[in-house]
Amino acid sequence: MSLVLVGEESDVTAHRFTAEVDGHPVPGLLWRPAGRDLPRATVLIGHGRTSHKQTASVVDRAHRLAGRGFAVAAIDAPGHGDRREPDATEWPRPDQGRAVRDWHGALALLHDAAGLDLDRLGYWGVSMGTALGLALLAGDQRFRAAVLGLMHPDWPTPPGARIRADAAALGCPVLFLVNWDDQLVPRDSAFDLFDLLGNTDKRLAAYPGDHAQLPDEALAAAVAFLVERLDP
Amino acid sequence: MSLVLVGEESDVTAHRFTAEVDGHPVPGLLWRPAGRDLPRATVLIGHGRTSHKQTASVVDRAHRLAGRGFAVAAIDAPGHGDRREPDATEWPRPDQGRAVRDWHGALALLHDAAGLDLDRLGYWGVSMGTALGLALLAGDQRFRAAVLGLMHPDWPTPPGARIRADAAALGCPVLFLVNWDDQLVPRDSAFDLFDLLGNTDKRLAAYPGDHAQLPDEALAAAVAFLVERLDP
Repeated sequence: MSLVLVGEESDVTAHRFTAEVDGHPVPGLLWRPAGRDLPRATVLIGHGRTSHKQTASVVDRAHRLAGRGFAVAAIDAPGHGDRREPDATEWPRPDQGRAVRDWHGALALLHDAAGLDLDRLGYWGVSMGTALGLALLAGDQRFRAAVLGLMHPDWPTPPGARIRADAAALGCPVLFLVNWDDQLVPRDSAFDLFDLLGNTDKRLAAYPGDHAQLPDEALAAAVAFLVERLDP
Repeated sequence: MSLVLVGEESDVTAHRFTAEVDGHPVPGLLWRPAGRDLPRATVLIGHGRTSHKQTASVVDRAHRLAGRGFAVAAIDAPGHGDRREPDATEWPRPDQGRAVRDWHGALALLHDAAGLDLDRLGYWGVSMGTALGLALLAGDQRFRAAVLGLMHPDWPTPPGARIRADAAALGCPVLFLVNWDDQLVPRDSAFDLFDLLGNTDKRLAAYPGDHAQLPDEALAAAVAFLVERLDP
């Protein structure tokens, strides 16, 4: 249940942890600014489908955020990363309720083992990270800001009843990212999901590129948005 | 032909000027950072229809930009501001070619009378300011960055042959602003114009609100974009 130091750089430390949820291990990573007081805010990163807690884009985001003073956590979604079955041929679209329970288990562990204050939370997850993240964020007042996007309102399948309800129940400010030439999530379907977000404190930023080809300036804008809203 | 000081604040001075183009006076305003060397970059502001060179939103943008070290110029479009006929009952949709000649006349005056270096230009104009601005920007390599938006590809009337050609010929990086709930320029038509922009160095930012209800964060993002691209 404890944290194991797995990486230490001049400005960021990384720790491995394993929560236990519904009798299953949920492996995760926690990044923290090195040599600073406990961060005032924690950002959760939700990875995309086929990806995992330690994929390059997650680690990149974690370092950008820890460098700005946030604690950052990521967990493997069901069927992904360390939770992938050895003989699996493809990656599942996890049940949203299960993904929420996983996050709640991880947050409880981070509170107990790492002393993280969970009153100021942010979330950053695009693609499947948005579908699962919306379920986590809906109605949870601890979340003060979220970076979402690259997702449509029919996940996992039409009519997407849950993702639409979750979107409508979203209470925190959102920056919603779109790839203009997204082949997997055509921009019009991404616009539909943005339109469904219940909070009017939202803005959409679109950049040329196919699915998940977000330029550096999009990542920088996401960090700036979280910093401004969460004041880590 | 010279500049007349009309305003002086702690950080910005404002000057009135009148260029002469095709035998007609073209009145304009120049704002400059007070007490600094000649700015390295000049941003032209193109106002919207029914508006003019000294309308509140233009003056606000000019002060934001001059405060960041830019020279800033605005002129009245044909039929607008000081160029409005006393008995006019509505505002025209000016001919794009005439608007371009007006700007070229103003730039020549600003070079001669104010010593402005015109090698590093930016442009900020939404709504009609985009329709006329695209004509000015198309193929002109002096422009290094432009903030555009709130416009569709059928201005002044379908099929909008000139605005489409100008959009395709745009060579500089663009930040394109959209109001999500725009009744005058429905967002889908704004997306169509963004799609037609020939330069792939472009990004779109959308905010809730009806036509021209851009929140402060949109204006701040526009200033940041121009600063980053033009380094005044």
